[in-house]
Amino acid sequence: MGSSVKRVAVLGSTGSIGRQTLEVIGALPQNFAVIGLAAGKNTALLAKQIEQFRPRFVHSQSKEAPSSEAEYELLSLEEIAGHPDVDTVVIATSGKWGLKPTLAAAKAGKRIALANKESLVMAGEIITSQAKRNRAQIIPVDSEHSALWQCLEGESRRVSRLIITASGGPFLGYSPAQLAEVTPEQALKHPSWRMGSKVTIDSATLMNKGLEVIEARWLFDTPFEDIQVIVHPQSIVHSMVEFIDGSVKAQLGYPDMRLPIQYALSYPERLDNPQLPRLDWESIRKLDFAPPDFDSFPCLKLAIEAGKKGGTYPAVLCAADEVAVQLFLSRRIKFTDIAHLVGKALEKHKSTAHPTLEEIMAADEWGREMVSGLVKELNK
Amino acid sequence: MGSSVKRVAVLGSTGSIGRQTLEVIGALPQNFAVIGLAAGKNTALLAKQIEQFRPRFVHSQSKEAPSSEAEYELLSLEEIAGHPDVDTVVIATSGKWGLKPTLAAAKAGKRIALANKESLVMAGEIITSQAKRNRAQIIPVDSEHSALWQCLEGESRRVSRLIITASGGPFLGYSPAQLAEVTPEQALKHPSWRMGSKVTIDSATLMNKGLEVIEARWLFDTPFEDIQVIVHPQSIVHSMVEFIDGSVKAQLGYPDMRLPIQYALSYPERLDNPQLPRLDWESIRKLDFAPPDFDSFPCLKLAIEAGKKGGTYPAVLCAADEVAVQLFLSRRIKFTDIAHLVGKALEKHKSTAHPTLEEIMAADEWGREMVSGLVKELNK
Repeated sequence: MGSSVKRVAVLGSTGSIGRQTLEVIGALPQNFAVIGLAAGKNTALLAKQIEQFRPRFVHSQSKEAPSSEAEYELLSLEEIAGHPDVDTVVIATSGKWGLKPTLAAAKAGKRIALANKESLVMAGEIITSQAKRNRAQIIPVDSEHSALWQCLEGESRRVSRLIITASGGPFLGYSPAQLAEVTPEQALKHPSWRMGSKVTIDSATLMNKGLEVIEARWLFDTPFEDIQVIVHPQSIVHSMVEFIDGSVKAQLGYPDMRLPIQYALSYPERLDNPQLPRLDWESIRKLDFAPPDFDSFPCLKLAIEAGKKGGTYPAVLCAADEVAVQLFLSRRIKFTDIAHLVGKALEKHKSTAHPTLEEIMAADEWGREMVSGLVKELNK
Repeated sequence: MGSSVKRVAVLGSTGSIGRQTLEVIGALPQNFAVIGLAAGKNTALLAKQIEQFRPRFVHSQSKEAPSSEAEYELLSLEEIAGHPDVDTVVIATSGKWGLKPTLAAAKAGKRIALANKESLVMAGEIITSQAKRNRAQIIPVDSEHSALWQCLEGESRRVSRLIITASGGPFLGYSPAQLAEVTPEQALKHPSWRMGSKVTIDSATLMNKGLEVIEARWLFDTPFEDIQVIVHPQSIVHSMVEFIDGSVKAQLGYPDMRLPIQYALSYPERLDNPQLPRLDWESIRKLDFAPPDFDSFPCLKLAIEAGKKGGTYPAVLCAADEVAVQLFLSRRIKFTDIAHLVGKALEKHKSTAHPTLEEIMAADEWGREMVSGLVKELNK
């Protein structure tokens, strides 16, 4: 292994981002090697990944260790994230399970390729201050934040506006009445991106976009007032930055997570990778834009408001949304009930300012229980 | 005058770019001061500019010096461009008159804000090598090249493609037969940009875009094969760069030359200037793109071919085009004859490889005479 080969730990390796991260690493063996893999309960796929990449460290949520001919050390997520031999930690674990390993990587001064939204949404203040203190570099993997990062590169950061694009999801143009009738099958058909089911539903409600606004606030230390969301159905312009002189820079590409994943790994370099598609300007004939419809998609507003209020509101937002999305997927509530339940939970919450990680986790628990209680009332 | 105030000489101050440069400088007196002004024969406007900006150095092509209460020193274009007290030289003189002052500024190691296309098109090799030797910085003022410059900022320049956008001019979608009938009045109505008449006709023939491709080749040291032109009628995306990982960066703004002018003056900083418009994403609903029509607009192809062949071909291209555009404006030839005459002149030219400035100027003379002779045959 050459000294220029970066040793990458992939936490959440069997999920959508994890698998695409391994595709990128597999295509660039001169640049990256897998030193750690962590997965949830998909032990069969994890075992295959271990065979192929031969990591030194493994974590599995499953009770039985993945059977494999390869030798490896079983560690916790935090142990892998903070291990001295790890250069870059890809945080692709889902939900609140991303927080502790992100914090461990921040404390250990790692390069963090961050795909987990909840880390910054729920604990942005704690994680960014730890990263700053320990010179950890948080590089976003989300296509929107990667676009913003790329547009800001080389600039003195005198920014007047961050413009985050939203595909608008599969229900762009739907009225609230139409939205009340949509099924999980319809909501899971995203027009442009391949993603896990939770994120796909969040894209359909625009909750996802709201979480991204909160993330952007922490990643780029930008006030909410200077972050704008615009709908762009083709998902080719991934986001834009307006500078103080009015000049706007945009980053473009086909919707393919492998580009922002690779950029987070290779930054500040760019690497040639034949896997990655090139925009074909013979076939792209138009790019559409529209302001978002806050009436049909109240989750966007709820998220931005929770972000502005801060404290433990964003933690409750994430927890309530996660439970509500599961309830929708299991057909216990309507699509429009997601926003209703999240809004109710936020309304009832008593926030703690500058919360500790424990207080954030407690707010998460509180939010889950609140939605579980509210849904019983809803179904009476 | 504080030490941070940059002393700017504006060559071609009464033309479109010159006047807009003075608007920008007038709005930012904390950052820029006018140390020199040079103009052609518009002595009345030059006198007004002298009153307002009180430059130390003046050049006028007119026989009578501009009458003014102000005191100033009359110098040649080259003397102003190379004067030790000048920090930045804006080259906004038109046609071949830009070459010698650009070269003087390059030899004197100045910041050159370059709006004159012919300097790099006709003498790219000489000027870029002199600039390199003397650490002069050539920063483009053209909106397209400014966009490319901005997209490249902070990147390691591992570029796979420069994508230059073209508005397509007022005759987008016209057939060659329709183009044969267009009048100077129609051609002078550009849909998006305010510019001088020569540049406006060059925009209508797409010659302008061809010259920009040659300029880009020299400014960014990029082979012609990696420079693509695409039509974008709204002129909001000013150009794009595709990097080796397939990521594309674009620079956007309303068509307003004051932004690229200001950026060339303030680079690498950006400055807040209330004159400069902000993109309104509530009103921008779509951006269109299309491949250029090389059959209807043969000037684009002629220019790229002349650029590829190099030597004195680009000088003949510029000279022949300048004469042909004047003949069209004075109604002596048809719109489609512009390409015809330029093509004929290039066909008959015997090029000199790696020409000196004298050889370039001789080729310019040759091209002018050739077109004047060809038009007599055409009109027989």
